[in-house]
Amino acid sequence: MTHSTRDSIYDAIASIRLIDPHTHINPHNPASSTLADLLGYHYYTELAHSAGMPKNQIEEPGISPRELVHRLVKNLGPLENTAQYRWLVEICRMFFGFEGHRIDESNWEDLFDRSESIMASADWPQSVLDQSNVEAVFLTNEFDDPLSGFDTDTYIPCLRTDDLVFHLAKTSVRDRLAVASGIELSDDLGTLRQSLHQRFEHFVANGARACAISLPPNFCPLPVSDGRASSALSHVLQNGELADASHKAALARRVFWTLAELCDEFELPFDLMIGVNRGVYPGGVYQGQDLYDSRVSLTQYRELFNAFPNVKFPISVLASVTNQELVSHAWIFPNVITNGHWWYSNTPSFITRDAQARLEAVPQTKQIGYYSDAYKLEFVWPKFDMYRRCLSGILHDHFVVQCGWSEEAAIELGRRILRDNVDEIFPKPN
Amino acid sequence: MTHSTRDSIYDAIASIRLIDPHTHINPHNPASSTLADLLGYHYYTELAHSAGMPKNQIEEPGISPRELVHRLVKNLGPLENTAQYRWLVEICRMFFGFEGHRIDESNWEDLFDRSESIMASADWPQSVLDQSNVEAVFLTNEFDDPLSGFDTDTYIPCLRTDDLVFHLAKTSVRDRLAVASGIELSDDLGTLRQSLHQRFEHFVANGARACAISLPPNFCPLPVSDGRASSALSHVLQNGELADASHKAALARRVFWTLAELCDEFELPFDLMIGVNRGVYPGGVYQGQDLYDSRVSLTQYRELFNAFPNVKFPISVLASVTNQELVSHAWIFPNVITNGHWWYSNTPSFITRDAQARLEAVPQTKQIGYYSDAYKLEFVWPKFDMYRRCLSGILHDHFVVQCGWSEEAAIELGRRILRDNVDEIFPKPN
Amino acid sequence: MTHSTRDSIYDAIASIRLIDPHTHINPHNPASSTLADLLGYHYYTELAHSAGMPKNQIEEPGISPRELVHRLVKNLGPLENTAQYRWLVEICRMFFGFEGHRIDESNWEDLFDRSESIMASADWPQSVLDQSNVEAVFLTNEFDDPLSGFDTDTYIPCLRTDDLVFHLAKTSVRDRLAVASGIELSDDLGTLRQSLHQRFEHFVANGARACAISLPPNFCPLPVSDGRASSALSHVLQNGELADASHKAALARRVFWTLAELCDEFELPFDLMIGVNRGVYPGGVYQGQDLYDSRVSLTQYRELFNAFPNVKFPISVLASVTNQELVSHAWIFPNVITNGHWWYSNTPSFITRDAQARLEAVPQTKQIGYYSDAYKLEFVWPKFDMYRRCLSGILHDHFVVQCGWSEEAAIELGRRILRDNVDEIFPKPN
Ligand SMILES: [Zn+2]
Ligand SMILES: [Zn+2]
Ligand SMILES: [Zn+2]
Repeated sequence: MTHSTRDSIYDAIASIRLIDPHTHINPHNPASSTLADLLGYHYYTELAHSAGMPKNQIEEPGISPRELVHRLVKNLGPLENTAQYRWLVEICRMFFGFEGHRIDESNWEDLFDRSESIMASADWPQSVLDQSNVEAVFLTNEFDDPLSGFDTDTYIPCLRTDDLVFHLAKTSVRDRLAVASGIELSDDLGTLRQSLHQRFEHFVANGARACAISLPPNFCPLPVSDGRASSALSHVLQNGELADASHKAALARRVFWTLAELCDEFELPFDLMIGVNRGVYPGGVYQGQDLYDSRVSLTQYRELFNAFPNVKFPISVLASVTNQELVSHAWIFPNVITNGHWWYSNTPSFITRDAQARLEAVPQTKQIGYYSDAYKLEFVWPKFDMYRRCLSGILHDHFVVQCGWSEEAAIELGRRILRDNVDEIFPKPN
Repeated sequence: MTHSTRDSIYDAIASIRLIDPHTHINPHNPASSTLADLLGYHYYTELAHSAGMPKNQIEEPGISPRELVHRLVKNLGPLENTAQYRWLVEICRMFFGFEGHRIDESNWEDLFDRSESIMASADWPQSVLDQSNVEAVFLTNEFDDPLSGFDTDTYIPCLRTDDLVFHLAKTSVRDRLAVASGIELSDDLGTLRQSLHQRFEHFVANGARACAISLPPNFCPLPVSDGRASSALSHVLQNGELADASHKAALARRVFWTLAELCDEFELPFDLMIGVNRGVYPGGVYQGQDLYDSRVSLTQYRELFNAFPNVKFPISVLASVTNQELVSHAWIFPNVITNGHWWYSNTPSFITRDAQARLEAVPQTKQIGYYSDAYKLEFVWPKFDMYRRCLSGILHDHFVVQCGWSEEAAIELGRRILRDNVDEIFPKPN
Repeated sequence: MTHSTRDSIYDAIASIRLIDPHTHINPHNPASSTLADLLGYHYYTELAHSAGMPKNQIEEPGISPRELVHRLVKNLGPLENTAQYRWLVEICRMFFGFEGHRIDESNWEDLFDRSESIMASADWPQSVLDQSNVEAVFLTNEFDDPLSGFDTDTYIPCLRTDDLVFHLAKTSVRDRLAVASGIELSDDLGTLRQSLHQRFEHFVANGARACAISLPPNFCPLPVSDGRASSALSHVLQNGELADASHKAALARRVFWTLAELCDEFELPFDLMIGVNRGVYPGGVYQGQDLYDSRVSLTQYRELFNAFPNVKFPISVLASVTNQELVSHAWIFPNVITNGHWWYSNTPSFITRDAQARLEAVPQTKQIGYYSDAYKLEFVWPKFDMYRRCLSGILHDHFVVQCGWSEEAAIELGRRILRDNVDEIFPKPN
């Protein structure tokens, strides 16, 4: 009986139509064409590389999708225990009729051919969304994205701001900003604010429902006075990437603070993804070079949370050791919201541990259960399903068995975490 | 069968008469009068505020208890998933005959009326203690508490010292110390020690069984030379709260070290509650403004533990990430004792995780299982019961099932953790 | 059925013949002679001391093994809940026919006598290895160990380098290095490298399969220029232990970096055991004085991991809060390998938590499941068995039940973690 209650909770929450509140889907090419698009996901290339596959075998210019898949398949054995490998197998079983549990020399080529023909269907992206029970996905758009040529009800724009905050010293970034906004940066701080303001107008006019950024562990947002910001801006405009670190840092803080002000003005939630160090392993494969320092604290953000009571901050933390701070801050600060299970914390045992801590102490209306972070639509389903397995376990074991909740109440909590909060925290513009 | 063994372990430890080794009960008004006393507990006000209820609705001067309860009840929905909400429902079911699982518009007023009449009984406090199977509770007394007018066998004094260590620069605190001790602080360090000594005499004479303090994450206790302490004291006496931070810090360390010396002299355990940052969210409701930085280490206390081998230090940590350090220090240092599950770590999954780590590696005689931290007597029972559910799960799953212990041995361990250690670590004065 | 599948997974992995990849066994006296050798293990002396037994009762010079055992037995009661106590009881049950679950005044002397006569057998060490299903154990050899007089197929040498890195300022250490290597250190940096090189030659010629070191939490390995290293060496040679801390630190980093270069040249894995602070409790018993600061990050090692792509770094972390960083680094860096569950993390709940996180995200070929860290052969079995209980639980609950793996596949993963990776990561020299 216990087992069947758990199953029926799982079934009920699996039937909830999803909006995925954070992905890296390209709306102009949202789904895969061959297995190479799936196996080329950095999780597989970086894990295969970690297990011994040379980078130049993976990133050799000009190799065909079939050849890349063959090379990677030969290196998947060491990965079979990982959660990431399981996503891959489940995609193949769900979408391509694969019946095995292991992709290897004996079956990869059949699978390649069969999947290629299935993915060739003109309506493949919509078919993946439908099979996955997904209504819409949030995107990650560069600040100069024209946001045209796709359906923004299904592919919801989100203004990604890493370049603006951390790379404004690069000529290329300033040029992109000038072209996109029509405003050239000058020593006048007003040009900075106006060009950012113009980008918010553009994004909101095109249906954006969030602003987002990923932040290194040592980032500590603080307001920067006009005087200090002005001299930092001048210095950076003159010296570009050779500018002093202190000036670049002051400008980064100023831009970040201005973004928070604009989120306030435009009523956009500001997704903070806290803790990543970029390029720690420069010899790694593409997108497989970043790590972190777990010695980060949300106390670094206290001034921000106090200064912007009307901005919603959905927060993702990279390491599970920061999860309790996230729980406690979301418990105290009205504008702090827990958001998903990010990257290195996106495996079942960390998810279960972190999600349960949140469900025990954070108001249910302030928890965004999950996002897939996917680059291709096919990954939304297996990643959400991993989360649903964890969530239904908690709903059953903790709420039904230990707390005596009805199955219906547990499912209702699941619905709130999985779907309702996405609708309410990132409301559709009128 | 497994299930019934777990149940009988729970039943056995639930029958153990408790002494609660840390509360904030007011012995002159130990229990609640209306639901407003229960719902006014900071857990409910801060969580309701976090979920969107404006502070001025909660803290409006002059509103009646009934009105406050009505307002809060309308805002409890988002909290129904929390452990804290469960305490409330269990209180209402245990003490007021409430039969629901949700307090809402449909039932709150009946509940208010019925509970008010029950709480109006003259012997309500004792009735709560009896129904809760609680023999006595430790208090948290300000250093100038006269400790008179209540039964110190049931309400056990404990000398709380935060003001002495961290707020001696305030005139009001120094005035209170002078009035209470009969000794005026002067540049002579002796006056500082004598006034503190006088307070210890007063507390011990009135049955105090512990000294206690809560400490911020950056506190690092070290001895301060007489010369340094003397100049710090002079400076603080002259400048009050405007004194230099370095002088205030030196004086804080000196007072703290002196308190440890007095604990040694008077054989009082010194409860250290490590890790809280006060006032992080100044816009929060009363008692709902404090958070922490989890980057704290017990290595900050190594000099203290080495310097006072005869002082027992029951230690509480705020964040679960510090629990393993606590386990390891209690495993190595004879004078370090694990103490309860504090505040932001006081939810079932953190309790289970932290308690099991302790039970696997710390001598059973050095673990104080739990304290309620309650402000009103009604909360002692549901909080301890939450802990007992976690503890009986560990006793069953780990000790009986995995280690092959008898049910009796497991219950005996539970009794030691829940009760015997309180008696032995905080012995009743002769 | 579920229960029996778990049992058969346990049985299968318990039948795997082990190589223990890290111990402190003395190959000239590998097993115990009396219970005093077992109860003298620092876990029992430090826990008994922590629970109140005075150090001088434990370390009184000249007391007989029988008297020491009697004294300790009288102090074991408070330890009965600990994992360490369980190892002891299991040894007595496994090897000495003990049938109880508690060693106390009523039975210790019989046990002492019976075990003494069993251990007196000439082939006792080999008998322990056979009963424990252990093929070989890695040693921890001082750099000047002659490595002669024992079978290096069973007792595999490992070059321990703590003294070279952290204590070269001591005359005694430099003298030992000069005698062992035949090379006297001078201001010429070449003498340093040559003497270390000679030690690697000696160890590799005698079958060493690893280099190892334990490191304090604040250690941050970086290359040191020849100029800086040269002045540090001169200064240390002139001033010995009175040398400036900055010179000692520079020399430590230089020696460490040179060891990494030699590991590269000699193709030896470099075991890093990260996080211990020595002598935190100087009043503690022998080997019971060390603790840690959990605020350590593997990001301190990023330069090392990048600089030596061909050196395998099996990494042990002292605190479970560092485990996720270890998982993530092993997931990204090809040369980072997870290694065992060290010391303060070597209890069932930390093992289970940490091992599951590794099994979900680190390639299976990059995980060394466990090592015993034992000083006497008798402890290899109960420690590995504790680990096997945890591992078989994960294999069953996570892989078989949740992921749908076959029992055979789960057992195969167990074999890889428990044995195959030891063979492959520390290959037998040709
Ligand atoms: Zn992302
Ligand atoms: Zn308290
Ligand atoms: Zn060791």
